[in-house]
Amino acid sequence: MRLEVVNTGDELLLGHCLNSHLAYFGRQLSDLGLRIARQTCVPDSDEAIAAALAEAVSRSEVVLVTGGLGPTSDDRTLDVVSGVLRRGLSEDPAVLESIRRRMAASGREVTAGCRRQARALSGAEVLPNAFGTAPGHYLPATPGSPHVFLLPGPPRELHPMFEEAVVPRLRALLGPAAPPAIKVFKLFGVGESAAAAAVDTPLAAVPGLSHGYQVDAGYVNVRLTGSPGPLAAGGEVVQRAFGDAVVSDDGRTLEQVVVARLAARGETVATAESCTGGLIASTLTDVPGASDVFRRGLVTYANTAKVDLLGIDPALIDTHGAVSAEVAEAMVRGCLERSGDDHAIAVTGVAGPAGGSPEKPVGTVFIAVGSKGRAAPEVLRCFYPHERAHFKTLTCRRALDILRRRLGC
Amino acid sequence: MRLEVVNTGDELLLGHCLNSHLAYFGRQLSDLGLRIARQTCVPDSDEAIAAALAEAVSRSEVVLVTGGLGPTSDDRTLDVVSGVLRRGLSEDPAVLESIRRRMAASGREVTAGCRRQARALSGAEVLPNAFGTAPGHYLPATPGSPHVFLLPGPPRELHPMFEEAVVPRLRALLGPAAPPAIKVFKLFGVGESAAAAAVDTPLAAVPGLSHGYQVDAGYVNVRLTGSPGPLAAGGEVVQRAFGDAVVSDDGRTLEQVVVARLAARGETVATAESCTGGLIASTLTDVPGASDVFRRGLVTYANTAKVDLLGIDPALIDTHGAVSAEVAEAMVRGCLERSGDDHAIAVTGVAGPAGGSPEKPVGTVFIAVGSKGRAAPEVLRCFYPHERAHFKTLTCRRALDILRRRLGC
Repeated sequence: MRLEVVNTGDELLLGHCLNSHLAYFGRQLSDLGLRIARQTCVPDSDEAIAAALAEAVSRSEVVLVTGGLGPTSDDRTLDVVSGVLRRGLSEDPAVLESIRRRMAASGREVTAGCRRQARALSGAEVLPNAFGTAPGHYLPATPGSPHVFLLPGPPRELHPMFEEAVVPRLRALLGPAAPPAIKVFKLFGVGESAAAAAVDTPLAAVPGLSHGYQVDAGYVNVRLTGSPGPLAAGGEVVQRAFGDAVVSDDGRTLEQVVVARLAARGETVATAESCTGGLIASTLTDVPGASDVFRRGLVTYANTAKVDLLGIDPALIDTHGAVSAEVAEAMVRGCLERSGDDHAIAVTGVAGPAGGSPEKPVGTVFIAVGSKGRAAPEVLRCFYPHERAHFKTLTCRRALDILRRRLGC
Repeated sequence: MRLEVVNTGDELLLGHCLNSHLAYFGRQLSDLGLRIARQTCVPDSDEAIAAALAEAVSRSEVVLVTGGLGPTSDDRTLDVVSGVLRRGLSEDPAVLESIRRRMAASGREVTAGCRRQARALSGAEVLPNAFGTAPGHYLPATPGSPHVFLLPGPPRELHPMFEEAVVPRLRALLGPAAPPAIKVFKLFGVGESAAAAAVDTPLAAVPGLSHGYQVDAGYVNVRLTGSPGPLAAGGEVVQRAFGDAVVSDDGRTLEQVVVARLAARGETVATAESCTGGLIASTLTDVPGASDVFRRGLVTYANTAKVDLLGIDPALIDTHGAVSAEVAEAMVRGCLERSGDDHAIAVTGVAGPAGGSPEKPVGTVFIAVGSKGRAAPEVLRCFYPHERAHFKTLTCRRALDILRRRLGC
């Protein structure tokens, strides 16, 4: 089934935001056994959209279009599609009513712009948008025209709509043949080329299996595609090669695995963060049900906060510096004692761009993890000389990985 | 000058990595006053690359191609370009010598695959690659063919080559005329359709100005493009319409604006977070130099933490519930008193999916902002019935926006 993607939006071409649609569609469609034959991105201009759309429909069986469905004057997709595919465009009372209800719930009026989103193309199915006012549209194939899906641009509206409304329709079009299954092993603590060197040859030797790698800020994701037998054989190769570096084989993240294990054990964890500024606590609390295992976190950014909130001896900071193994260990001990929680994570480092020294350059971080009743906390020195946000993410993930390995999950 | 981008690479279409080229080119070209008329992504197949390239050269003055220049069998770009543009392809001894030197420096041999990268197209300039073995190629325009740049796919090779070899050549092609500038106003606290309703007509009435909108989790970005006169006139329209809802006109975020203003005033802020779990502290500390204005944050996720760390009266929680205006206000007061900071932000809400009630459904949140020496904190009840991560982001941004408005920036 030949499939193309057309993304519309000046903001994508101006570099004001990253086009994440392609990667998202690529992964979703791979799961269905489909591949994207071409992706095109055009600005919010009638001529540009019309040209790209006319070309895509002329050579494809399915066309996915994103963007241009919103309330503003640069939202042109419905008008252009109406012209190119010769479909009438008129207000749909049911859609208008749902928009009105949605706006009323947040005390807002339906403006003229907003009302444009209530229009529907003749012969199209309207796809409800649970996360925004602009619905999607599905135009089933007709002689001379392929299946066309019009989808909203914002990822948080697009993704649920794609998974709930587009995937089932594509599955129906593909028929009953089972698509090859995909299994993703998330590894942490192994480099990409080391991972590939370890399993490339044995995975390639499994008949009927294909595989690939993707890195994501400390994670290496190993993707296996095949029918159940080859998939199981490939899974054994990965497990044997990487052992406890395997975080999950079902897409679960470090924080999901850690929260689930703590919940199962009836245990809790507290955090004491300096350079990550709260990111570890925030990441843990991204997991629904985190409140069962996480009760408190401290962001002790300044030395005074480390002294006040964790009882660190100021002399220790004077002697070793705030970024030191000694202070990281004292932070985790103070956190454990004061919180009464079962486990604690503490981090202190130099996020940069300022604050580095020859002994502790920007990117240096000490991570300490301790547990009630165990003699000494583990303290690890790491070096992530990257820009601030990436430094914080790598530090956070590494800290969660240390706890994960301690918990044996 | 009509410019198109063609990205090649299976990995981009399979979702194994994000296509960051488009956003990168978009920003770089905007600085030159150039816009991308179309971007196309195709898999590593001769037919797909040839079709996309033939179309792009037929309608453009400049074509940028990425990927497919490396040593492996799926690197097809030079062969395809040679065919489509009818240019001879032969080994360039100088390029081969530079590859040989590069490989020798890391103790490696020049393999047959590697040697393919020493080929050059007739009439093309070879662009040195300081970060890899595959050089780039520039084919100046000839009658019937536009300027074509062939560039490597990996961003760390592409970016330096683009900035050192492509930008100067594009500047020379553009000549001395000043490019149209772009200005982005970030708004917070205004809906997209309300924003468009307020300024669509007056902005459209400014001669020589074009405009567009983009939403991003609470932000509405209004983008103006034009020469300095129209840009200034459009900027006045936006400022007049939105007043203090304008966060910045230079791309700065809420946290950047708040940290800068606090630093200028020599003031500090502390945080006491329940439902956001540390995200506000983490967001503030994403800004370089945050340590000048942020010293401590508390993540009081459990009621016991609110009592211990903020001195909340347990009876207050029993009477009003942890998610209440009363508890939010007590949290901000406790935070201010105990930290000694100049300002404090406190939030308590129901992130969901569990924990809602008819009076306080999932998505309900109370945000309190207080300042030393001012009588009463502001307390705002908001409702963000979205999935967890989005709920947290909206709450965090709203809290920062309340502080921003208090600081008058």
